[in-house]
Amino acid sequence: MNTPRKSLRTQIGKGNVFAELCPSREVLKHVTSRWGVLVLVALIDDTHRFSDLRRKIGGVSEKMLSQTLQWLESDGFVLRQAFPVVPPHVEYSLTPMGREVAEHVEKLADWIEDNIASILEARVQLAEAELARLN
Amino acid sequence: MNTPRKSLRTQIGKGNVFAELCPSREVLKHVTSRWGVLVLVALIDDTHRFSDLRRKIGGVSEKMLSQTLQWLESDGFVLRQAFPVVPPHVEYSLTPMGREVAEHVEKLADWIEDNIASILEARVQLAEAELARLN
Repeated sequence: MNTPRKSLRTQIGKGNVFAELCPSREVLKHVTSRWGVLVLVALIDDTHRFSDLRRKIGGVSEKMLSQTLQWLESDGFVLRQAFPVVPPHVEYSLTPMGREVAEHVEKLADWIEDNIASILEARVQLAEAELARLN
Repeated sequence: MNTPRKSLRTQIGKGNVFAELCPSREVLKHVTSRWGVLVLVALIDDTHRFSDLRRKIGGVSEKMLSQTLQWLESDGFVLRQAFPVVPPHVEYSLTPMGREVAEHVEKLADWIEDNIASILEARVQLAEAELARLN
């Protein structure tokens, strides 16, 4: 049963995000999408229901959250579990592969949160330099 | 001269990417934008001219590359140096802060390149499971 798996890995080898048609480019797009980043980081801590995620991620619409979860599910990063109850109960969690990618994304988001003051300072300085150049 | 810098840092503290209006959200958007990721990774190795970057990053348009470089410059990640020669010669490189953020982005892109075969396998398996469920 593992034959197609092995042959796929052998055929594909390593991706190249600089190549326009490499599928790694599309996965990178999903993972780094506006809401993809936040969904992955939100799921590191815990399994969440759709409504929890929507509450946690400021500004996301139902449509965009749903689209993002579908992308991440199809890439094998998010597991969607629907429980056959009324009203419907659906839970989202990270797969082991999803956890790995989410941890990289979280480090990036943490770095930005930690350095936001320096980044805003850089903007002020750049704007001042531009003003000085014009005067 | 350092007074505004200190006070800005004290006022802002740490960002929160989950908050819709936090400026860290915008920086995250620039860094994880379709072309932002690739520009940052491309500049880790070396300073590049605009035309070099365009050649290296498959599929980027002149307009989008220019917009992306402006975002990254305004966040203090990319340094733009214009040399007063004919024809104009402009070089882009990472600032020390840009190098830090680029290294996080590179780790994420590397992980995706290394795992693209498993990701595509996950897609095949999900599609097969979906087919089986429908039959």
